[in-house]
Parts: sequence; structure tokens; C-alpha cells
Amino acid sequence: MRLIDQPHHDGSPLYVSTARPALGETVTLRVRVPAASRVREVWLRGTPDGEPRFLPVRHHEGEWWVIHYEVRNPVTNYRFYFLREEGEPVWLTAAGIVAGDLTDATDFRLVAYDAPAEWMTDAIVYQIFPDRYARSTSAGTLDKDDLPDWALPREWDLDEVIGRGPGTAEQFFGGDLDGVVEHLDHIQALGVNTVYLTPIFPARSNHRYDASTFDVVDPLLGGDDALRRLAEAVHARGMRLIGDITTNHCGDAHEWFRAAAEDPNSPEREMFYFGPDYGLADGDYESWNGVKSLPKLNWGSTLTRERMIGVLRKWLHAPDGSPLLDGWRVDVANMTGRRADENRTHEVAALLRREIVAVRPDAMLVAEHMHDSTGDVDRDGWQGTMNYGGFTRPIWTWLCEPDTPNDYFFGTPGGVPRRTAESVLDTVHSFGGRMSWRTLVHSWNPLDSHDSARMRTVAGTRERHLVAVALQMTMPGTPMVFAGDEFGLTGWNGENSRTPMPWNRASDQDQETLSAYKSLVRLRTEQPALRRGGLRWVYAAADTLAFLRESPEETLLVVARRAAGEALDLGVGGAGEALGRAARSAVSVNLYGGADLVAGVVPAATGPDVQVWRLA
Amino acid sequence: MRLIDQPHHDGSPLYVSTARPALGETVTLRVRVPAASRVREVWLRGTPDGEPRFLPVRHHEGEWWVIHYEVRNPVTNYRFYFLREEGEPVWLTAAGIVAGDLTDATDFRLVAYDAPAEWMTDAIVYQIFPDRYARSTSAGTLDKDDLPDWALPREWDLDEVIGRGPGTAEQFFGGDLDGVVEHLDHIQALGVNTVYLTPIFPARSNHRYDASTFDVVDPLLGGDDALRRLAEAVHARGMRLIGDITTNHCGDAHEWFRAAAEDPNSPEREMFYFGPDYGLADGDYESWNGVKSLPKLNWGSTLTRERMIGVLRKWLHAPDGSPLLDGWRVDVANMTGRRADENRTHEVAALLRREIVAVRPDAMLVAEHMHDSTGDVDRDGWQGTMNYGGFTRPIWTWLCEPDTPNDYFFGTPGGVPRRTAESVLDTVHSFGGRMSWRTLVHSWNPLDSHDSARMRTVAGTRERHLVAVALQMTMPGTPMVFAGDEFGLTGWNGENSRTPMPWNRASDQDQETLSAYKSLVRLRTEQPALRRGGLRWVYAAADTLAFLRESPEETLLVVARRAAGEALDLGVGGAGEALGRAARSAVSVNLYGGADLVAGVVPAATGPDVQVWRLA
Repeated sequence: MRLIDQPHHDGSPLYVSTARPALGETVTLRVRVPAASRVREVWLRGTPDGEPRFLPVRHHEGEWWVIHYEVRNPVTNYRFYFLREEGEPVWLTAAGIVAGDLTDATDFRLVAYDAPAEWMTDAIVYQIFPDRYARSTSAGTLDKDDLPDWALPREWDLDEVIGRGPGTAEQFFGGDLDGVVEHLDHIQALGVNTVYLTPIFPARSNHRYDASTFDVVDPLLGGDDALRRLAEAVHARGMRLIGDITTNHCGDAHEWFRAAAEDPNSPEREMFYFGPDYGLADGDYESWNGVKSLPKLNWGSTLTRERMIGVLRKWLHAPDGSPLLDGWRVDVANMTGRRADENRTHEVAALLRREIVAVRPDAMLVAEHMHDSTGDVDRDGWQGTMNYGGFTRPIWTWLCEPDTPNDYFFGTPGGVPRRTAESVLDTVHSFGGRMSWRTLVHSWNPLDSHDSARMRTVAGTRERHLVAVALQMTMPGTPMVFAGDEFGLTGWNGENSRTPMPWNRASDQDQETLSAYKSLVRLRTEQPALRRGGLRWVYAAADTLAFLRESPEETLLVVARRAAGEALDLGVGGAGEALGRAARSAVSVNLYGGADLVAGVVPAATGPDVQVWRLA
Repeated sequence: MRLIDQPHHDGSPLYVSTARPALGETVTLRVRVPAASRVREVWLRGTPDGEPRFLPVRHHEGEWWVIHYEVRNPVTNYRFYFLREEGEPVWLTAAGIVAGDLTDATDFRLVAYDAPAEWMTDAIVYQIFPDRYARSTSAGTLDKDDLPDWALPREWDLDEVIGRGPGTAEQFFGGDLDGVVEHLDHIQALGVNTVYLTPIFPARSNHRYDASTFDVVDPLLGGDDALRRLAEAVHARGMRLIGDITTNHCGDAHEWFRAAAEDPNSPEREMFYFGPDYGLADGDYESWNGVKSLPKLNWGSTLTRERMIGVLRKWLHAPDGSPLLDGWRVDVANMTGRRADENRTHEVAALLRREIVAVRPDAMLVAEHMHDSTGDVDRDGWQGTMNYGGFTRPIWTWLCEPDTPNDYFFGTPGGVPRRTAESVLDTVHSFGGRMSWRTLVHSWNPLDSHDSARMRTVAGTRERHLVAVALQMTMPGTPMVFAGDEFGLTGWNGENSRTPMPWNRASDQDQETLSAYKSLVRLRTEQPALRRGGLRWVYAAADTLAFLRESPEETLLVVARRAAGEALDLGVGGAGEALGRAARSAVSVNLYGGADLVAGVVPAATGPDVQVWRLA
């Protein structure tokens, strides 16, 4: 499927004059119309104040057609309509070229709500599950007598991680925050710039998503002082530190819940859903997916709002006023405030955003969303989401082992289906076409996490794993690396993937994988087009995906293959200007992969492969 | 494109146990899985309270797989996932079968908000533009001296309608409400059961969308008494009467606006958008698309709400308590309450719905929406919309004259593009896939209206026009017939289509068209599957569309062709049960079109053609 001859537009600087427009501002939109698309008229269609309107795009220089457009509404949608020299007219939407009429759901979007801080656009996130990252030297050997009653002590380099069944949540390896401090050299050498910690509050499990308080950092992790030390060390290196907050629930040992459960007349009672008022049995309460250790917070309660706002704000600064956390990843954001006929999610997201930027204008607020976040973004709340739906899942379906041993695909029956590059593109468009470019760019692209199988296990081989990493580092969206992936660690589900880091086991650190990670993270860091450029698809066939990342500074061509393949001629037959030029001049610089692009021809590959070239 | 072998589900009674579920109710869902689809496992996926969940569908009898599912949220979405004997798994959504992952936007929906009254499901709407329908005998000849200053008197059977330029809104033919009463025999003979009147309040134009008051019926139409006579006569025949209300704006001669414009301190001032508070020049005010005679109502004003609620309620009953209007078509609903950063549309829709059903539980509330209503439905407001996007436009693109002389396609540059049946299907899915079955069924399917070219002009020939009418009467959704279409009247844009009815000109009444209308309306009225059945696509190719309408009582096969075509074998190769049975038994009854279906083979056609069969 050849795509390069089609008109193109996205939200990147080459195409939109600002990603941070004010309401009422007039922005400049540019759409690229290759000669090969044989377009004779270009129109912009929007729906200002809810009424459709066509505006002629009259001015162009070569491929570039230009129009000025008012950001009339907080989310101002538009798409392009092309009358062609022959054949029926086509639309250009954020989900690509479409012949035939369609809804506005995939229109491009200009968002006038406050934009995320600039640093987030360049973020590369490194996810740490504290119990499994590192135990600090000062903490010494795990002393069973120091552990709480629920904990099942485990030996770091000896015990296997329990992936399901008894002990899964209780196995305790004893990583702590000073352990993270001790490995910041590794983290910095990897090239990432944002450390994200899964929960650090006291709880009754190793994952700590069942907080017993939000007021202190778990002493088992080193307490408040350890967090301060970590924040200082991270910030001293010019990096950022992100926390993890459960807005949907707390633990059943949480002081709020204890008060509520023990005394129906307590002020905290309204913070939860108890009994017949909510269609539940007397004394029963709503919980996350029926798991009683995770009572669901009721955002209809003023007290819930006050207290949770307090928590989210408190941890952004240390008592001395120095920065502590630089923002939050919001756990189970998709369920927060949603229950039966209640739907306060958007209200909660807006509230939290407003409250945290009031004390830290540069704070990050990114929502966990395992399935489809498109209805919850482009508002005044979450700045982005974890883009499992529009990134992780399609990448898995493309790069999974043909007969995958992995039984876990986010709960999807039948495991990971193997799909073609065209299918990947459809899925990327299905999700990416329903959010603004700004939300897409500020959403996290994980290959995996503490909630999924590891990419290495899904891919089955190092080669396919590294193709996935290359896509993660070259596609739009904030890469999120789950700690251990850089060593090629494996895991067949979320719990099994929470592997203690093999610091002491050189044989479990795949140096080739580590080296590729470093190269690819550096590539993203050094090339502005990878962090801030547009995305123009060039080609998709079963085993091959090719795209351009284009910024005012440079044009990069990325060609990914999941299997061996023939040479591929991208430079002929009316390809777009940049490619055409590269083909004619035969001047291109390889930035990754090592192959030459000669006269626009991508050389044959003997197996899974990624090449990145800068086109002259 | 053969579709009949695919699994199918929709919101009709064969597939969903109730279209009026209560919140918390458990409904029975059935999905039809033809053997030819080679499915080995069926799963339902929903997102109760915002979290994805897969449930196995374990029970089946033959093709029918059954699961019980809780209506957990006011809009409860779900889709099906099929693991197959070979090949990748596929999804079944409201937009059809999809291989590859996608957002939840096209999930099926169960809606627990209050349902429309039962009568609406069977409604066939007849739209009357009062100035052009009929002048009553008692009113006599139009007396120029009785006309207001703005009116340009015209002779009913002599003067051409002015379609654009000076006089368009002022030309006055003098139709009145008693004129409608005098033609109820015609209306009833046509078979429709719901009369919809465009505005009837006094105004300064022939279309009356610029009301100068909402308190009385225009004396030029016969005043309040004439409306009462019309309502009584309509109701006496067992029909319904629907009004047209401008919630987005009123006329600049409206008493509210006069008070507001003349005195900045008047209570009415807040009902509009005046001056610098809204980014406008001093004394300037917001109006519909910049047309100053249509000042926009501000729904942020309590007074606007009180007064408009009063208007909508007032006209549902005569002073003696007898029913007057049976509901409203809401003009420019898509813009109502929307302006810059204000978006009160959903709030206004819910308010109006609540207020009118409080006095008339059976009242209709249908929103005008010229483009994409999918974001505004399946709430507690509009019961349906005018489905121009998901019905009118795709039908036009399929049945338009190959080189259409019509320059009007809802403002789309380049006029009506001619597209294939596959494209029609894609567009129908794009819109229909983003609303509940209930909303789809209760939305109006116009072929045209006072705001568009006439279908006859778009189609270019009677044959193609009647194919369109047959689709209108056999597809899900409430048919809306613009008065005059039954005589084959023409018109190249909305204004030009507002043709005075040719009651006195037999030569302008195409009897073949009238006869076909009567047959097709009768067909819809007599066949429960056409009004309440599901819609299962059988086949789509450039010039041919075939589908089944299925209800517990019967299965109908509809085959529409826009051009001559070969015989088409639908009965072989693993077709679904109903079709297979028809093919085997060769027992089917032709209900429209006159051709025989022999052994599942649709006979060749010599031109545009529609056949409807009841399958045994």
C-alpha cells in the first residue's frame, strides 16, 4: 500500500503554526498536496459553533497549500476536501485519506485548552516498579522480622517471580527508593529523562495500589526522606520524577476507609459507596472490579475532592518548597468517577489538572487507560494517556511471535493475534485519528509495563523486540520504557514481568539489547524530527512499515521490517518531494541500521530490521 | 462484496430483548453466526463503569448465540469478538465486521434513558412548508393589501419560485393551515401518519424561521384557530402533528429581541449576545451565520430558558386541553447553545426533553442536524435527528445523475459526487455505527427537504428517484417525505424546492410517482420488519445494494439497483440461514417490483430497479 503520493496534514510545526493556540486565535494551516495526487481544488471544512462550513484553500507554493483558520471553539475541528482532476473527491482526516462521506469523529483538532509544559514534548519515560528495581546498599539484606504481616519475603537473585496465584501480591523483594538513587547512572546512561515510579505509599501489597495512607512515603521504601533524596538526585541530573496516584480507589486498610467502614456516621463515609443507597447489600461497598481490598472512591463527595486534591498537591513539593514529584500518572483513570449512572470522570480530570497546575504550572498529568481513551482526552483534564490502544496493541499484533506462547493480551481471548502492517496502520489511525496531535504526542507509548507481558516475550526474539523499540523511539508519542526491557527481560503477564532487576547477574543483561536501547534513545534525543516532527506514512505491506518524520529542521525516513524482505523502491513513480529529492540526489545519511539508501531504494533485509535515514 | 456470510447483530427485537431497558436491567443479546463464518468462540466485550471486560458467549442454538448482559450504565456499549477456525479473529461492531483493533466509538449501545413513545417507531413523516402547500378555499384569492410590508405577492400556479437572490425570502404564495386541512384526504391516501409543519409563527419571511413572536400562530396562516382546526382534523384521522421551533435564534422583529436591542437594561438583554462582553462591537449582536435578521439566543440566560420552555410546552395543548402539536422538530439544533467556549447543547436538549414530556409523555423531540449528529444523540435529550449525514447524503451519492446538473450538496464544493454501493455502505456505517439502534430508528430519513435540492432533480430520472424512495421506505429510520416529492416535483436547491403544490395542474402531478409512493408507504405500513426489523446487509457492489429486514414475524429481502445488471445469485455458497432456506425452497413472495426470486437468484434488471421479497 503506497501512501506517499497522498495529500498530508498533521498537527506538527510544518503543518500548524502553533500547537498552543488561544481561543479566538487565527492559526496558519498548511496541507501538503503531492503532484501525483492530481488535486485541482483544496477546501477546508470545519464546524465552528456546530455548523459545517467550507473554506477554499487558495494559496499554494508547490506542494504546500496554506489557509488561515480561527480557533473558534476550545476544540476546533477541521478536515480537508480535495477535488481531483479525475475520480471522485476525497477527504483528508486525522485518520488518513477517505473516499466517501464520514462523521467528524476523525477531524483534525486544534485545542485551545492549556497545553502541557514544553518539557513533556521531549520526555522519554522510564518506569520503575519500586519493589523490584534495586535494594539500596544502606538497607542491607532483607530482614524478615522487619516486614509487615502480609509480606512474603523473597530473595532478589534467587527466587522466581510468582506470576499468578497465592503470593503474587505478597511476594516482597525489598527494592527501595535509595536503590533507585544508586542506579541513576544507569538510567542517565540509557538516555531517558523522566523517571516514573509506580506507587510509593504504604500498602498491604508489593504493588502498593492499595494505599493505606497517602500522607507518607512507605517506610519500607525509605520514607519521605528517601523520596526527597531521590527527587534531588533526579533533578540534579536534569531529569524529572513522576508519581502514581490511585484516584479510583484506595486500599481497604486506608485510614479514610477504616473510618468510613467502622462508623457509618463518620465524615469519611460519603467518600465511598456503602450499602443500599448504591444498590448494594448492607455493609457492602463498591470496589475496583469487585476486589474488596480496593474500595472505590466516590467523587460525588466534597470530602473526597478536598482530600485527594490535597494529596495530589502535597507531593509536588518538599516541605522546604523544593520540587518533589513533577506530576502524576493517574491509575485507572478510565474508571475514576464512573459508576452506574454517575459519570464524573471529565469533571475530576479538570479539577485535578486545575489544582495541580495552580501550584506547579509545569506538572504532568497523564491518565492510565488500558483500552480507549479517545472519549476522555482533548478536554481540560488529562494531558495524555497511556496509549496501549493506539500503540502497544497494534505493535504487539505486528511483531508478536507467529505462534506466541504468551497468553496475555490485555485480557483479550485467544492471546495476541498476528496482523499485517496495514492492520497496524488501521488501528493507529482508529485511535490517533480520534485525538488531537497534541494529545497523541503527549500520550505515553509503552511497549509493555508492570501490567502486561514483556515485549521481549511477545516478540519472541531480540530482533523483533528491537524493531519494536525502534518504532517506540521513532513514532510520535512519549516513549515509556519499563525498567528491565533494556536488558531484554521477559515476562508472560503483568505480574510475571515485575522482574527484580538483574544488577548482579551480568548473564541476564543482554548487552546487545542495552546497546540498541542506548542508540535508539540517543537517536530520539538528538533528532528534533523524532520528538516534534510530523508523521507521514510512506508504505505499508504485510511485513513492512515505512514513514517519514518531518520537522522544519530535517526529514527522516524510517523503514521497519518484521521479517526478511526484498529491496523496496520508494523513490519512483511520483513520490512526494522530500523522497523524490532523496531519490534524485542519492544523498542520505544513515542514522540507524547501517544500510545505504541508494536512489530511493531501500536495500533487501535478511530478517527483522529497522533503518533510519536523514534525507538531504 | 458479499456480506451475508458474516456474523450479525443489531438493536432490533431479534437480537436485543428490549430497546427500552432500565438502568441495571439484564437484557438478552443474540448474535447470529452463520456456519460459513467458521467461528469457534464468541465473546462479548463491554466496558462497564469504564473498564473493558470480555464475557464468553457460551450458549447457542444453530446460528444463534445468546448471552445475558447488564445495562450497567445509561449508555452501555458492547461488541462481539470471534475466534475463528482459521484466520485472525474479528470484531463485530455497529459499523460491521472489522479485522484489527479499534476504538469503542462504533460499539453497539443499549440506552437506558427514557425511550421515545411507541408511536414514533411507526411514524412516516410528511413535511409541509405552509406558504407553498395550499391556500384554503375560504381564504380566497391573495389580496395584496392584506400582506405585510415585506411580502412580495406571487401567483400560485403562474409564478416561478425564486431560488436565489432578491425576493427569495419575501416571495409570498399564501398557503395557510386550512389549506392543509383541505388536503388531508390526499395526505391520508398517501399513507403517511405524521404531518410536520415548518414554522407557523409570525415572521418577516415566507419561511418564518425568523419569528417575531412565539405566542400566536401567524394570522396569515389562519391564526391559532386554524392550528386548532388542523390539529383536530389530523388527530381525528389518527395522525400526528409536529411543529418546528427555532431554539438557536428568533427573528430581529421578535418582541424579546426588540426589547433587548432598544434597552440595554431590559430583562431580555441577557437572552442574546450583545457587544463587548462577547467580543463583539458595541451594539452588535451574535446571529445565525452572521445573518442579522436571526439573532442568536443565549441559553446561559435563565430568562431564555423560562420563556423557551414556556413556548415548547404551550403549543402541545389547545387552551381547552386537547392535544395540539405532538412534538417538535428543533431547528439548527446543532448550533443551539454553542458559541466560542460555551457548549450548552446537551444541557438544553435534556432540559427541553424533560419539560415537554412532563406535560406530554408521548411528545416527539427530533433535532435538525445537517452534518454529524452522532456526538449529540444517545443522551437524555433529542430522541433522534434528521439523518442527512447517514442517509440522505449517501443515497444522493449513489443515485445522483452521473453528470448532475445540481450544484447543491449541502454546501459541499463540486456538487454531488457519484459513488458506489460500497461507499454508501461505508457512510451508512460511519454514521449508523456511532449511534444506538434506537436513535437510528427514531431519526428521520429525508430524501430531501425545504433545505435541499429535490431528490427528483438529484436523481435526474423517475426510475432512480423511485429507487431512492424504495430505500427510504425499506431502510431503518423514520421516512420523511417532503410534500411534492410524491408528484415528482423538482428543485435545484432548498429555496427552489419550496414549490407551490400543483393541485390545479394535473400535468405536473406524476401519477406513476404518486402511485409508487403509495405502494411503498403501504409496504412499510403493512410489513412489521420494515418498521421494526433489523438490518442485515447481504451484498454491495457498485450498482447494487441488497439487504434483509428481519423481525420475529418475517424476513424481507430488498435488492436495489441503480442501473441495469445481470442476474445475481444470492442463494449459494454458504449464505445465511434465511437466505439459504429461501434458495432451497424457492418459496418467496414478491412484495414490490414484481420479479420472481427463483432458487435464490435475483433476476437481471434492464434499468434502475427495486425488488422486495418476503422469504418463506
